[in-house]
Amino acid sequence: MAPSAVLVLHGPNLNLLGEREPEIYGRMSLAELDQHLGVIGEGLGLEVRCRQSNVEGELIEALHAASAWAAGVVFNPGGYSHTSVALRDAVAAIRLPVVEVHLSNIHAREAFRRRSLIAPVCIGVISGFGPLSYELALRAIRDRLSAAEAER
Amino acid sequence: MAPSAVLVLHGPNLNLLGEREPEIYGRMSLAELDQHLGVIGEGLGLEVRCRQSNVEGELIEALHAASAWAAGVVFNPGGYSHTSVALRDAVAAIRLPVVEVHLSNIHAREAFRRRSLIAPVCIGVISGFGPLSYELALRAIRDRLSAAEAER
Amino acid sequence: MAPSAVLVLHGPNLNLLGEREPEIYGRMSLAELDQHLGVIGEGLGLEVRCRQSNVEGELIEALHAASAWAAGVVFNPGGYSHTSVALRDAVAAIRLPVVEVHLSNIHAREAFRRRSLIAPVCIGVISGFGPLSYELALRAIRDRLSAAEAER
Amino acid sequence: MAPSAVLVLHGPNLNLLGEREPEIYGRMSLAELDQHLGVIGEGLGLEVRCRQSNVEGELIEALHAASAWAAGVVFNPGGYSHTSVALRDAVAAIRLPVVEVHLSNIHAREAFRRRSLIAPVCIGVISGFGPLSYELALRAIRDRLSAAEAER
Amino acid sequence: MAPSAVLVLHGPNLNLLGEREPEIYGRMSLAELDQHLGVIGEGLGLEVRCRQSNVEGELIEALHAASAWAAGVVFNPGGYSHTSVALRDAVAAIRLPVVEVHLSNIHAREAFRRRSLIAPVCIGVISGFGPLSYELALRAIRDRLSAAEAER
Amino acid sequence: MAPSAVLVLHGPNLNLLGEREPEIYGRMSLAELDQHLGVIGEGLGLEVRCRQSNVEGELIEALHAASAWAAGVVFNPGGYSHTSVALRDAVAAIRLPVVEVHLSNIHAREAFRRRSLIAPVCIGVISGFGPLSYELALRAIRDRLSAAEAER
Amino acid sequence: MAPSAVLVLHGPNLNLLGEREPEIYGRMSLAELDQHLGVIGEGLGLEVRCRQSNVEGELIEALHAASAWAAGVVFNPGGYSHTSVALRDAVAAIRLPVVEVHLSNIHAREAFRRRSLIAPVCIGVISGFGPLSYELALRAIRDRLSAAEAER
Amino acid sequence: MAPSAVLVLHGPNLNLLGEREPEIYGRMSLAELDQHLGVIGEGLGLEVRCRQSNVEGELIEALHAASAWAAGVVFNPGGYSHTSVALRDAVAAIRLPVVEVHLSNIHAREAFRRRSLIAPVCIGVISGFGPLSYELALRAIRDRLSAAEAER
Amino acid sequence: MAPSAVLVLHGPNLNLLGEREPEIYGRMSLAELDQHLGVIGEGLGLEVRCRQSNVEGELIEALHAASAWAAGVVFNPGGYSHTSVALRDAVAAIRLPVVEVHLSNIHAREAFRRRSLIAPVCIGVISGFGPLSYELALRAIRDRLSAAEAER
Amino acid sequence: MAPSAVLVLHGPNLNLLGEREPEIYGRMSLAELDQHLGVIGEGLGLEVRCRQSNVEGELIEALHAASAWAAGVVFNPGGYSHTSVALRDAVAAIRLPVVEVHLSNIHAREAFRRRSLIAPVCIGVISGFGPLSYELALRAIRDRLSAAEAER
Amino acid sequence: MAPSAVLVLHGPNLNLLGEREPEIYGRMSLAELDQHLGVIGEGLGLEVRCRQSNVEGELIEALHAASAWAAGVVFNPGGYSHTSVALRDAVAAIRLPVVEVHLSNIHAREAFRRRSLIAPVCIGVISGFGPLSYELALRAIRDRLSAAEAER
Amino acid sequence: MAPSAVLVLHGPNLNLLGEREPEIYGRMSLAELDQHLGVIGEGLGLEVRCRQSNVEGELIEALHAASAWAAGVVFNPGGYSHTSVALRDAVAAIRLPVVEVHLSNIHAREAFRRRSLIAPVCIGVISGFGPLSYELALRAIRDRLSAAEAER
Repeated sequence: MAPSAVLVLHGPNLNLLGEREPEIYGRMSLAELDQHLGVIGEGLGLEVRCRQSNVEGELIEALHAASAWAAGVVFNPGGYSHTSVALRDAVAAIRLPVVEVHLSNIHAREAFRRRSLIAPVCIGVISGFGPLSYELALRAIRDRLSAAEAER
Repeated sequence: MAPSAVLVLHGPNLNLLGEREPEIYGRMSLAELDQHLGVIGEGLGLEVRCRQSNVEGELIEALHAASAWAAGVVFNPGGYSHTSVALRDAVAAIRLPVVEVHLSNIHAREAFRRRSLIAPVCIGVISGFGPLSYELALRAIRDRLSAAEAER
Repeated sequence: MAPSAVLVLHGPNLNLLGEREPEIYGRMSLAELDQHLGVIGEGLGLEVRCRQSNVEGELIEALHAASAWAAGVVFNPGGYSHTSVALRDAVAAIRLPVVEVHLSNIHAREAFRRRSLIAPVCIGVISGFGPLSYELALRAIRDRLSAAEAER
Repeated sequence: MAPSAVLVLHGPNLNLLGEREPEIYGRMSLAELDQHLGVIGEGLGLEVRCRQSNVEGELIEALHAASAWAAGVVFNPGGYSHTSVALRDAVAAIRLPVVEVHLSNIHAREAFRRRSLIAPVCIGVISGFGPLSYELALRAIRDRLSAAEAER
Repeated sequence: MAPSAVLVLHGPNLNLLGEREPEIYGRMSLAELDQHLGVIGEGLGLEVRCRQSNVEGELIEALHAASAWAAGVVFNPGGYSHTSVALRDAVAAIRLPVVEVHLSNIHAREAFRRRSLIAPVCIGVISGFGPLSYELALRAIRDRLSAAEAER
Repeated sequence: MAPSAVLVLHGPNLNLLGEREPEIYGRMSLAELDQHLGVIGEGLGLEVRCRQSNVEGELIEALHAASAWAAGVVFNPGGYSHTSVALRDAVAAIRLPVVEVHLSNIHAREAFRRRSLIAPVCIGVISGFGPLSYELALRAIRDRLSAAEAER
Repeated sequence: MAPSAVLVLHGPNLNLLGEREPEIYGRMSLAELDQHLGVIGEGLGLEVRCRQSNVEGELIEALHAASAWAAGVVFNPGGYSHTSVALRDAVAAIRLPVVEVHLSNIHAREAFRRRSLIAPVCIGVISGFGPLSYELALRAIRDRLSAAEAER
Repeated sequence: MAPSAVLVLHGPNLNLLGEREPEIYGRMSLAELDQHLGVIGEGLGLEVRCRQSNVEGELIEALHAASAWAAGVVFNPGGYSHTSVALRDAVAAIRLPVVEVHLSNIHAREAFRRRSLIAPVCIGVISGFGPLSYELALRAIRDRLSAAEAER
Repeated sequence: MAPSAVLVLHGPNLNLLGEREPEIYGRMSLAELDQHLGVIGEGLGLEVRCRQSNVEGELIEALHAASAWAAGVVFNPGGYSHTSVALRDAVAAIRLPVVEVHLSNIHAREAFRRRSLIAPVCIGVISGFGPLSYELALRAIRDRLSAAEAER
Repeated sequence: MAPSAVLVLHGPNLNLLGEREPEIYGRMSLAELDQHLGVIGEGLGLEVRCRQSNVEGELIEALHAASAWAAGVVFNPGGYSHTSVALRDAVAAIRLPVVEVHLSNIHAREAFRRRSLIAPVCIGVISGFGPLSYELALRAIRDRLSAAEAER
Repeated sequence: MAPSAVLVLHGPNLNLLGEREPEIYGRMSLAELDQHLGVIGEGLGLEVRCRQSNVEGELIEALHAASAWAAGVVFNPGGYSHTSVALRDAVAAIRLPVVEVHLSNIHAREAFRRRSLIAPVCIGVISGFGPLSYELALRAIRDRLSAAEAER
Repeated sequence: MAPSAVLVLHGPNLNLLGEREPEIYGRMSLAELDQHLGVIGEGLGLEVRCRQSNVEGELIEALHAASAWAAGVVFNPGGYSHTSVALRDAVAAIRLPVVEVHLSNIHAREAFRRRSLIAPVCIGVISGFGPLSYELALRAIRDRLSAAEAER
């Protein structure tokens, strides 16, 4: 079986990973995380392609584009989680399984972070485990794809 | 009378028109819609120029630019309708008549879609008629321009 | 093709049209508007019958009655838009396409005018264009009926 | 390294797993799930002990008891997630890492399910992946314990 | 036709019936009420089995158990009506017709009693008639069962 | 004992009964329902007189008038349940026992249907059982009248 | 100076005055109140004409009609005070001074009675003084008319 | 009959009367108003004593003191109307009839002015008539005192 | 005078006293606290019997049972304070004086801890003094019982 | 050990104690209460100094001054409890232990009395026991001071 | 040019400046701050007069008095910012430019500090810069006065 | 001392400065403002670099970039102030002092402009003084840098 391709999409401020509040977000840089996820993906039979943007519209376009080549999406919408109807519409429009991930436990922070506009159109949410959140999300995508293959 | 120019501005995710949930949004692509609006505009003595962007800031800039050449704007802000104070400010800043349009009836959907931050600074809103929403909006712009000419 | 019949239903206070705050609502009287809509309807192949009432229950009954003879309804519920569950139920009960119209842009007025209880059960809403709101609504009804005929 | 013990705690109605709305919750029974988690745990070097109760106070007591023998907890509080301050206090009182899991995506359901009183005192939340939610949670506990060991 | 079995389930504090605020709840004890409902049930061809518990989790379990032997449930959730998502989930999980009853008119009391989390997953609600509320609910279950039989 | 007279008062849109969404409201017409309630009433020693109006003010007047001849009222206020302080005042002003009924389970519908302004001044509420809701309400009135007679 | 005409308009349930809860509303009937206001009006140089209706739409029409003959309105909107945007629009549309009156102190009753939709478009409000509320309102109208005359 | 004494109590900023926004509050100074109310009071058989303070605590003390000598109070709490529980408690503590007055129509201003914490413990409220509001309030006090005398 | 019996009832998680967050709750265990309260009670002429449960329904039953032997109750409902209508109903049903106590100052913690559903049906609340809260509550019960005896 | 000094500070309307609604607040006057507290204080080794003011700013100043001589404060902020951020700031600014007391159970009264702005910066709250509330608060201060001495 | 006079008005608790929570508010006393502002004012051609009061009514009076001699006001309303409609009215009544200042960043503190009732009637707000907030406000007043002079 | 560099960052629609509603925002263009701030900065020993973007993501990136070269930021987030969690996160992530500025007094405008999501992570806010707002912010940055230098 050829590996299925998965988009790992990082939203705003994640380019600062490793520098920004390392006591919360850890010391791994985004490049290191992406490389790590590539390795993990390989182990799961998934080809992982990573993308980061601070621009809401570019994230929308990355999601649109993914519908042409990806079998699933791991998406950390960062601060846009709580404010973007447009990203929600993009997730709903592409008909791929999308898993929302967060490095920190968004339920343990400010009240405005508790509502995600995007989560209701995802298949699930993983929040609070640092880089492991992404890794678990890749496993969830893998599981979903295997189930779909099994049904065929 | 030389035709008046009108900007038709499409917001986020509208580039997917025809592909995205066609049972809701219909099967006409954005290119086809734009062409159709060009023909309709011609019949109304309006030169229609269309633009789409997924980037909030580019939509702001398209509105700014329009104030130099357009006599009115038909604007589908998509998901930004409900969240963007910056787009509201842009509509208020340019002193052109702007009509907000929506393909679907936003009142019949999720509660967060019922509030438009942009509508209060538009001259009116048309929602629920698919591509016809745009066509009716062109007629409303036409009517407004004729009234203004008549007053002169 | 024999003309399809459409009910144009005016809610409370619209009998004052032309007299009440003409700088907002214009100087055309209700009789003149109804006559104008008759002409517009004729051009669209629609037989337009107009009715006004200030009594919520009479509006309900006019909607009920329309289900026996009309192919669609253009409805300006006026102040009842924001308060009447009973009218909403009447619109939902008759299985005709109903377009909600408003002369003024209800989004640009008091907060309590922003919620329409009736809009969610209409096919669409047109708000802000004065008498033209009705005219555009007739076009939307015409379009809906043509589409339905085409499907048959 | 001797396996670390982990409590998997199922809240109200989960005894019906496999029978209750299988199109949502899947066809695996609770006994089968528990057995499966035992196997998964073994692979991760974790001794998994499962418990289910419909009684809020018994869940509180299971958490209290776990602080004497477990290194972490995977907790599906079911309907108590949204209403129980007492369970929140129990999770906060025992000083173990607790992961909240849900079979279904609670963000895609009724509004009252979106608030978890318990999540803010957990290390993270995993929601939406069916039985896999538990499995991913075991991995998160494993990861947390390994990091703690590495620090020592 | 053998009598259909119905569970009459009394929630918290109902064991005090007849003692607690008799000017509101009447002077009939719970035992007397249960006996009376047995007689009424017999007249309706229903075998009535009564159960009371003050423990939320025991009420959940009584509902679960009923799905094995009962054809319907008359349920007075008492104070849990307004706070228990877990009981709501139990009612939804068993696929029996459940009627929510209240001795007093909950609409005429404190504001927090007006919302029932359980009512939306019941077939109906009867509130305000003292012991008669239960009796009317038995009739509603009887009616529902007869209709189901007639359809077969 | 001469039969006691009871007003059965139907609010807005109930004249459509049997035609409007029969999968929800059933196929019995209002005339048939009224006739059926007459028979049921007779069995209970009640003279049932039925009235329907779509006009809020006429419902108020029917309630006022009933205080001269009726011993109780069964009232389905339809959509006015949720919006009419004036009807609430009318129910409170006449000093008759009033039972609020609904054909459908209002708790299982839109949020705005969950609040009844009228229920707090009724003796009780019955919701969700179709035509049987009225029948149970007649029994509740019968029970109340018998108790009052017994006290005399 | 010929007497100025004033409309005294009574809303829903006020026809019951004297019968309904006399300990709150007093024992004077509506006919007696109207006669008394006639006498008071005469003393103030005002011709008082009284009207009562329970129908919201008829109250709207009485306000419309008054703009042809009255110099001011004393209006007790009863329960419609808190729910009727349509009556508010009618008061705003006629350009007469309107004083809102209430027999009881609406601030000392249920929370939903504290908001008047109509008061913001009146010149003032008088609440709590029984029949004297009307009398004081007539004096306020008299004062307003005298001031207007003085300015001419 | 010796004249009854009435306290007219003016709250914060009313010392500026006649200077502050005269287009709203009129050109009569507080001294002139007080003198005018003295004359009006005399005509009504009331001895009027006026007091103004900007200090919440002094207003409380003026109310306390009045219970020793006054038969009623006309009170304009100004901005404290909307924020002072302490003044509410003072009004409730003295057992005199208190009428709340406002020069402007508080319902036609900012939303936070619509709630009066003090009104629920007054006998009534008069708002919107400028200095006449006080005059009407004196008449209401007069009326109340006469009724009390008549009952004796 | 024979000592009066008092129930000291501890709610969920209080069995952990002394272990759980000792910097907040102190180092005294529940057994030590109960023993201490026994001594204090003796000094006040009260026989103190203590009970702890994590199960809401058992707390309800302990309250019911107390009505047979106790003269008052000191109740720390823990996390159930903020969520349990059923416990509130139990407190209201037994006609004993109940004092609600909290070890920590609930006003200084999360917002959801500020509302107690149970406090309104208690005679008073003492919050923030650690074990002393219970001691002060015993004194309040003592005072209440003495006053009642004095009245007899 | 020389007695520690404690300020007992009474807020607005408490000067009326004994006169105002004695069925709620008791018949003891403020002077008697202060004398009684002096005696109680003596028994506890506390020198009690009492102060009352109706003026918010004077209460602030009394708190400021106390920081120079007192070891603790017993404070009944009366109606200012619910509205005064300035008093809250004063309590937080002086670094003394402050106990908030109320004569009546504020949780059993109007909703606006349930929130205390001041309680979160006090060490605890005692509410509902009449004059005994103050006495219990003195004991709580005594206990706090003893603990502090013990730590030294 | 003779110096313009400016009132610097300090609200409640600011007399404690330098003592109260110096880590937040700094170590400069109010007297030192006032002296410093005098020097700064001199440099800007402004005569600065400072006033502090803890009494809301005295602050109101200081504002009233300023309208006779000052050209502008720098106002730190402290805790009254969030609760005082009366101070808002005073600021609006005097027709001077008023700048609201805060030492700390009120947006970074408790939620109830985020709303200022006074800010909407000021020309601007400066918050978060310690004593510099006042200095910047003096510059803003200076700038406003210069602009006004330039226009003359 | 070499000048410290400061980023002045202008958000959406500020490129229209001088053209857009000049009666509110003044007639100075953005280029003129930037030049003016350069001169002011020079006087304060600050090197001012200005940037404007309408794109939220570009503003985020400008903030990220500034952390490499700037000692502080003056930020006018325009309409994004009220809606952007992502910008808030960017301000919090870079560890520079940021001052939020607004040309107009946002407290005196629409309610949705009163909440700034960004202000809580800034050191302070200056709002309402037109271009002077920026100038005062530069002074605040200067003051902060000098204090930091002094501490070193």
